[in-house]
Amino acid sequence: METPAALIDSVKMQRNIQRMQQRADALGVQLRPHVKTHKCAEVVAAQIAAGASGITVSTLKEAEYFFALGIHDILYAVAMAPHKLPQALTLRRRGCGLTLITDSLAGAQAIIDFGRQHDETFAVMIEIDCDGHRSGVKPHDPLLLDIARLLGDTLTGVLTHAGESYGLDTPEALQAIAEQERARCVEAAERIRAAGLPCAQVSVGSTPTALSAISLEGVTELRAGVYAFFDLVMHNIGVCSTDELALSVLTTVIGHQAEKGWIITDAGWMAMSRDRGTQSQKKDFGYGQVCDERGTPIEGLLLSSANQEHGVAHFQGVDVVAQFPLGTRLRILPNHACATGTQFGSYTAVLANGDLQVWERLRGW
Amino acid sequence: METPAALIDSVKMQRNIQRMQQRADALGVQLRPHVKTHKCAEVVAAQIAAGASGITVSTLKEAEYFFALGIHDILYAVAMAPHKLPQALTLRRRGCGLTLITDSLAGAQAIIDFGRQHDETFAVMIEIDCDGHRSGVKPHDPLLLDIARLLGDTLTGVLTHAGESYGLDTPEALQAIAEQERARCVEAAERIRAAGLPCAQVSVGSTPTALSAISLEGVTELRAGVYAFFDLVMHNIGVCSTDELALSVLTTVIGHQAEKGWIITDAGWMAMSRDRGTQSQKKDFGYGQVCDERGTPIEGLLLSSANQEHGVAHFQGVDVVAQFPLGTRLRILPNHACATGTQFGSYTAVLANGDLQVWERLRGW
Repeated sequence: METPAALIDSVKMQRNIQRMQQRADALGVQLRPHVKTHKCAEVVAAQIAAGASGITVSTLKEAEYFFALGIHDILYAVAMAPHKLPQALTLRRRGCGLTLITDSLAGAQAIIDFGRQHDETFAVMIEIDCDGHRSGVKPHDPLLLDIARLLGDTLTGVLTHAGESYGLDTPEALQAIAEQERARCVEAAERIRAAGLPCAQVSVGSTPTALSAISLEGVTELRAGVYAFFDLVMHNIGVCSTDELALSVLTTVIGHQAEKGWIITDAGWMAMSRDRGTQSQKKDFGYGQVCDERGTPIEGLLLSSANQEHGVAHFQGVDVVAQFPLGTRLRILPNHACATGTQFGSYTAVLANGDLQVWERLRGW
Repeated sequence: METPAALIDSVKMQRNIQRMQQRADALGVQLRPHVKTHKCAEVVAAQIAAGASGITVSTLKEAEYFFALGIHDILYAVAMAPHKLPQALTLRRRGCGLTLITDSLAGAQAIIDFGRQHDETFAVMIEIDCDGHRSGVKPHDPLLLDIARLLGDTLTGVLTHAGESYGLDTPEALQAIAEQERARCVEAAERIRAAGLPCAQVSVGSTPTALSAISLEGVTELRAGVYAFFDLVMHNIGVCSTDELALSVLTTVIGHQAEKGWIITDAGWMAMSRDRGTQSQKKDFGYGQVCDERGTPIEGLLLSSANQEHGVAHFQGVDVVAQFPLGTRLRILPNHACATGTQFGSYTAVLANGDLQVWERLRGW
């Protein structure tokens, strides 16, 4: 096999998918996986087979790609930019059950005006800011009801994402942010309903909160993405073990600096991505945890630096040339599965029987 | 135009290409551009038209791509992994003037053995470590002559890359590292020649050293890559102004957090890459310098954080909703052109007359 290559351990992936689906089932909510992590038909198929009720996308290109593959229920979970409305219209006209989101009067007005001009109704959710992390309207902000009134019957619900959960790493803190995510999104829905407006859906989620929530009372659906693969950032947050990581990069040793204990690999940042998500966490994994060819982590061996097509793994006090000779195959567990995956045009899936399959991956906009 | 999009200002690009070619000409050396930055046929064509003598590649896929486009003189400047030799053989058999590099006896032996088995001779250069940055044999290491003897007549020269130059930011320090890069590579060549072995080519380079060297005596060719576009890392090093940056990301404002002065864009890390190369430099540009739609930097406005499809630019004390309303177009100058470029499947080139052209970009291995 050529290296570097993005390997998916399909057995671990299936387990991860089952784990999240069982949580959603136990919490009494639908699961709408975010496909931005993998952008891969085979992974979506496994998620749908396990019970997912539809998908979440981060670009309209993802919506087009997965709609063409037969997925109808698609939530585009990035605030709708007016100039992208013609693309959304094309999807709607082809029969896609596309839902848009907005967090402003200007955004809602643009969707309504464009819909009227083209005799089309877009289903819209209002994005709620539950933690000051990024976009969204605060649940108590008067703007919430103004937007809801403007949207009227096209309003299908509220959604939020507790992005701040990525900065936490104790079960107590994760449970607290999960409850905050739930409570503030439900509060927004109740305010809208109290004003006599429709708000059927209450959608929350992130992988850390989805795996930490005690109750999702009042919530109708859960969104999460990275759980299908997990990664070292999720390991540091505390929601998975390194043994559950389904994505790794296969690499070949292409050289050494023997005196310094350096192993040079053909996986540099072009393969791993420049994501250094563990840099600010309790354990900094550099550009990734080095494993043997079968995927078992090698204690103390990290990909400590990366140039475009060179990675450097540093092993103090070891004869690296003898132990990792030229041509040795290694696997690297990535910091961030979403970022590493996108460096590749396809994955190589390792099936339960050991067979390999090429799974294409979508890129771009 | 859809956003995010990778724009190339072709006028600036042409100027950058001319500038480096004129330096190579003035220093009396050939220029062999590294195409890993852009991976784009139109940019290579401009470099060849300006006088480049061949190209440098970081993957054999680049070699295959550019050979198919008519480039014959190709240096693959990453230590040859034995398992990639069949790919190199195919290129050689098709008539590609491919040169490989190695920095170990095991690597040299693998090339020779594979060549003998297939009745093919590979031209090989020895990689020299001039600054302890990454790969290569130190010029005074006895190993140098051992590898040279093993390669014999297939040895075509030595090459080095002063990667440490990326950590510097004064003209004096850059001149010193450029001189160190030159002197150590020439020293290696002279040791090989003194042993009665061939060493025709002496190849050095990085954009910072190429633009700082006072003399390249004894050197035959210069390699550099990022100069075609430049970026904020190069600006901080001091080898270009922000006005010379030819690559930017066009983005659309998709929302705000008015109270916090946040402008939310549809360029997140998927568009900008996760590269934070300016983080350790004298000015940290976050995920990039925000400019108006025409490319003029907006003083004080940086893309300060990035999620996958959301960027956040923070402007203290400004009514961001009024000044940058929903749908506003902005351009972001990237930290690292090589990393940002690879997030896109194509560039949109803005020609001198204002016309737009799509220029495809190679990705993957």
